[in-house]
Amino acid sequence: MMKQVPVGVSARHIHLSKEHIAVLFGEGYELNEMKALSQPGQYAAAETVAVIGTKGKFDKVRILGPARGATQLEVSRTDAFALGVNPPVRESGNIQGTPGIKLIGPAGEVEMAEGVIIAARHIHFHTSDAAKWGINDKQLLRVRVGGERGLTFDHVVARVSDSYALDMHIDTDEANASGAKTGDLAEIID
Amino acid sequence: MMKQVPVGVSARHIHLSKEHIAVLFGEGYELNEMKALSQPGQYAAAETVAVIGTKGKFDKVRILGPARGATQLEVSRTDAFALGVNPPVRESGNIQGTPGIKLIGPAGEVEMAEGVIIAARHIHFHTSDAAKWGINDKQLLRVRVGGERGLTFDHVVARVSDSYALDMHIDTDEANASGAKTGDLAEIID
Repeated sequence: MMKQVPVGVSARHIHLSKEHIAVLFGEGYELNEMKALSQPGQYAAAETVAVIGTKGKFDKVRILGPARGATQLEVSRTDAFALGVNPPVRESGNIQGTPGIKLIGPAGEVEMAEGVIIAARHIHFHTSDAAKWGINDKQLLRVRVGGERGLTFDHVVARVSDSYALDMHIDTDEANASGAKTGDLAEIID
Repeated sequence: MMKQVPVGVSARHIHLSKEHIAVLFGEGYELNEMKALSQPGQYAAAETVAVIGTKGKFDKVRILGPARGATQLEVSRTDAFALGVNPPVRESGNIQGTPGIKLIGPAGEVEMAEGVIIAARHIHFHTSDAAKWGINDKQLLRVRVGGERGLTFDHVVARVSDSYALDMHIDTDEANASGAKTGDLAEIID
């Protein structure tokens, strides 16, 4: 049985806490949904923030909603070099000991104390997909993408939940190196 | 037998024809060697050129010497997006039908008619290494790099010559996606 998973390429983006939304956009501000994402309930907001590193800056980094418990900036290694920050490769939510960075919004500024990561590549599985394929939450998988720059990623983290839809998330460096595009199909090897 | 190969990460660079060196730097100009490269006789020159795309530019792109028969600019996919050019993935020297771009040097400008490529990942083998491992010129190999972003590259082109030294060349996107650094060891799987 071929275990095929659609690829979703994640460009740099940020998740904001409610507290940081209030500082950056004003007290009581609510993000506006621009576009629904593949994961149910998640969306790209109409709003962006500026991210200011020691070497460079990005004027418009897309905010993904809804608000989270802690602010988290996800960049590629290429982006990290451009900003002048040295984040580790981490699973989303695991931000202890990661570097921070400065954010500027229309209403104010935030000096993140931590929360800059390079997201570890991962696959979201709905519980039913995982059960069908015998895959467990946190399992590390090998996943192949085809094409002229085809390759097999090791250490792809399985994330299983009733609230997830089947999707493999890689960053822009991984997309550029492999030639994979959003909507391509990747194959779980083992 | 482990078939281990050192990794060399290639940042964006350009090879120039003698004719283009004359236009960019002046008639009779000779490149100055700054640093020897892994391949015998090849060097990073002290000189750089500006590369001007429709969307962006790089002020200082390193020239690799000595002069070649045709000018060839090698960039990553990330660089290509930044410049606003859409080059194919090609083996070095195979530039027919590729896009061109504008170059500016201290003595003049060149509109390349073609020659912008994303270099296909490849391994240089000295003839003796290739013979020992039973590898032929142009053979496509699968090569694994380790680490937390470990992966296995398909379609790694073998290039065999008496004038080569054993080295695997990947670009900066491939390095960032895999975590591989210059001097790391990669393993030929098959």
